[in-house]
Amino acid sequence: MTSIGILGGDGRMGRSIAAAAAAAGVPVAGTVDRGGDAVALARAADVLIDFSAAGAVEAHLAAARAARTPLLIGTTGLSPEQHRAIDAAAGDVAVLQTGNTSLGVTLLATLVREAAARLGEGWDVEIVEMHHRHKADAPSGTALLLGEAAAAGRGRPLDDIRVDAHAGVRADGAIGFASLRGGSVVGDHRVILAGEGERIELAHVAEDRGLFARGAVKAALWLAGQPAGRYTMRDVLGL
Amino acid sequence: MTSIGILGGDGRMGRSIAAAAAAAGVPVAGTVDRGGDAVALARAADVLIDFSAAGAVEAHLAAARAARTPLLIGTTGLSPEQHRAIDAAAGDVAVLQTGNTSLGVTLLATLVREAAARLGEGWDVEIVEMHHRHKADAPSGTALLLGEAAAAGRGRPLDDIRVDAHAGVRADGAIGFASLRGGSVVGDHRVILAGEGERIELAHVAEDRGLFARGAVKAALWLAGQPAGRYTMRDVLGL
Amino acid sequence: MTSIGILGGDGRMGRSIAAAAAAAGVPVAGTVDRGGDAVALARAADVLIDFSAAGAVEAHLAAARAARTPLLIGTTGLSPEQHRAIDAAAGDVAVLQTGNTSLGVTLLATLVREAAARLGEGWDVEIVEMHHRHKADAPSGTALLLGEAAAAGRGRPLDDIRVDAHAGVRADGAIGFASLRGGSVVGDHRVILAGEGERIELAHVAEDRGLFARGAVKAALWLAGQPAGRYTMRDVLGL
Amino acid sequence: MTSIGILGGDGRMGRSIAAAAAAAGVPVAGTVDRGGDAVALARAADVLIDFSAAGAVEAHLAAARAARTPLLIGTTGLSPEQHRAIDAAAGDVAVLQTGNTSLGVTLLATLVREAAARLGEGWDVEIVEMHHRHKADAPSGTALLLGEAAAAGRGRPLDDIRVDAHAGVRADGAIGFASLRGGSVVGDHRVILAGEGERIELAHVAEDRGLFARGAVKAALWLAGQPAGRYTMRDVLGL
Repeated sequence: MTSIGILGGDGRMGRSIAAAAAAAGVPVAGTVDRGGDAVALARAADVLIDFSAAGAVEAHLAAARAARTPLLIGTTGLSPEQHRAIDAAAGDVAVLQTGNTSLGVTLLATLVREAAARLGEGWDVEIVEMHHRHKADAPSGTALLLGEAAAAGRGRPLDDIRVDAHAGVRADGAIGFASLRGGSVVGDHRVILAGEGERIELAHVAEDRGLFARGAVKAALWLAGQPAGRYTMRDVLGL
Repeated sequence: MTSIGILGGDGRMGRSIAAAAAAAGVPVAGTVDRGGDAVALARAADVLIDFSAAGAVEAHLAAARAARTPLLIGTTGLSPEQHRAIDAAAGDVAVLQTGNTSLGVTLLATLVREAAARLGEGWDVEIVEMHHRHKADAPSGTALLLGEAAAAGRGRPLDDIRVDAHAGVRADGAIGFASLRGGSVVGDHRVILAGEGERIELAHVAEDRGLFARGAVKAALWLAGQPAGRYTMRDVLGL
Repeated sequence: MTSIGILGGDGRMGRSIAAAAAAAGVPVAGTVDRGGDAVALARAADVLIDFSAAGAVEAHLAAARAARTPLLIGTTGLSPEQHRAIDAAAGDVAVLQTGNTSLGVTLLATLVREAAARLGEGWDVEIVEMHHRHKADAPSGTALLLGEAAAAGRGRPLDDIRVDAHAGVRADGAIGFASLRGGSVVGDHRVILAGEGERIELAHVAEDRGLFARGAVKAALWLAGQPAGRYTMRDVLGL
Repeated sequence: MTSIGILGGDGRMGRSIAAAAAAAGVPVAGTVDRGGDAVALARAADVLIDFSAAGAVEAHLAAARAARTPLLIGTTGLSPEQHRAIDAAAGDVAVLQTGNTSLGVTLLATLVREAAARLGEGWDVEIVEMHHRHKADAPSGTALLLGEAAAAGRGRPLDDIRVDAHAGVRADGAIGFASLRGGSVVGDHRVILAGEGERIELAHVAEDRGLFARGAVKAALWLAGQPAGRYTMRDVLGL
């Protein structure tokens, strides 16, 4: 039975991961917070999940490396130096870093990239997301991730072709974003590819906020069996 | 068999109305364009449909009044004086003026007003529309009409509470608008009322551009049987 | 501050109502289960909510009547005799009985009835619902409630015009039902009214299972201030 | 400029293809119907499109082969012998045979297969389609094609796991089908993959019936440049 160790166990995601592990019958070898002994946890667990803080990434990589324990990093906002540290650690141990641990979103992004690539610029792309009334940032990180996937499918940088939904007619090849806010919506994302006389809609609906924790646990279980190397969520799905 | 007379028969809507009448087996008594004899047409037809130009409204009202022939006016952008001229003519003959002759949109606006009124400001309102890639204005006129209905349900002027979809968190009671553009979409409108743990979505999907012409013909057939007075599309539906 | 008393407090809905009341800051005067003293609870509370069992309805009506405390009954499967007992009690005290305490569904049913009535039989009606993979009954009770509303709008009994979604072409005026099952979907319901060239979609999306408990608490707070009489959820919304 | 020859030019699809070619500025070298000279047309055109009848397939293959002119066959209901004749002709000339010439549906089927394969049987699959009130067969051919794609993704024959939407709870791994009918809907197809706490929806919306003709013209232009071989619509999209 693979056991997980949680780095940043006191945080919202840390507690959510502990709950998701319990619901899935996955043993938690322990949790560590600021000042705790990450190396001891790395020795006790079969795989580590880190949702602590960007500043702790180097220390956690060192612990994972010392114990040869695979490490999933869900922290975002990492510096180029921290990414290089991940690459270096990946020479000794399996490391997966991601800003989105949902299996559904990971798959959707792949489908969006494929669709945008195959249909070409004659099909317009629009991305609309809806979240609860308290979400301040817009578009959502997931909407941008899907936009990046569509832009990559077209071989264009997203920043060159991104346009806001309040504008009317778009330039050829533009990708439009719309952000709806209201009630308690957990997170809906819809990518519309509109051609002449037909359209394709590719959507993800999140039903509860435990989604990312469940995806992190599934990804960690997969990572526990991998050789040294740097992985992404796409690898977990075999994409 | 009720026959219709078309004012502005050469225009895009005039031709579309002739086609809709033909498809519905409704006889067209004649059409008149700039410089034509509107009074003779009013005498020959059982009801008139006017999609010509705002500037011709007074002349058309006079013709309808002289012949006691009901008149449906689809022209928009009328001045206060022209609205007063309609009110005056409505003392002698049935007149219906509207900016939207779709029966479905008319009904939807009523449902949106009712929903917004009953649910109250604890439910957030968002309006999202999608049209073909060539539509320049945003939001669409229909989206604004639906927004007016929601605002009226709350007893607030729309201009006070309207917000654009690119913004994140909304003020209490705000109504958000998003406009998507792409491909050849005829016109989709969706009003989302989002409460705590549940939401209601009220939508209209236009499948072809003949929608407004067909609605105008149906409304005209209804108007032909009405006594003098000023009517709206809501009256056609018995709302 | 209006306090509520919960009849059937040990049941799933009873516990859910206690949680919803706590979340809304509404005091719970007490709960009673099989064999408990309903009269004492009726005296202590400003309004009663009963999700116990059909067999207990007469006793709970007697308690509400004795204490002149309004009573919301969420129990279903009541006999004609029990409905007559409700009518009799409603001479002395406010009573609301319903099979669905969601405000959103109540409103949607009203909108569906109105739409079906105004659009007429030229518009086809289809109802599609989706629930989690474990829901065995199909169509859902809410789908049937919406179908009843559409049939009532047309002045027809639902049983005469109901048809299953696996059939192809429908008879004029038929109402089709489709039931999707999968994953953990709480409950989506969509009523589609399809005319020539346009359609209207009226939908309800449930995001969490606390919906009905929250609606029951809101309805009870409203009921606490009403004079003797028999009410429905439509009265709560002022419909 | 690539020119097309239309076999079965008098049929509904033949005329629709001529219109789509005209709209796209593609020259039509000629059309042939029952009794016409297919070999002469094959010599005059750069590529042939055949929507005539299954019985004419061998003659059309012979004409294409004689003139070394690529041939797109949209006829369905072919016998095993006819498929072998296609394989034989494909040794000399490019041949593409398909039951669905929509680029959007072709792409969607690929995405559905990929999604079903990656997500696995823990995610339930439901397919819902809506068409106009006159469509008698249910589910639609496109819904079945999408169901085949989902079943292929899971490595299972569709017939083993297909279930109708009126059933309640499904067996593990079942694929549910629902068919809605109403109004003038051209064709909506939606595949829902529902997991624990999240779902993915992959949809195609047909806006007008010219879709298949436009797709056939695009596919034919692509085919005109291919070496001898047997192709599918997936090849047109580079899938």
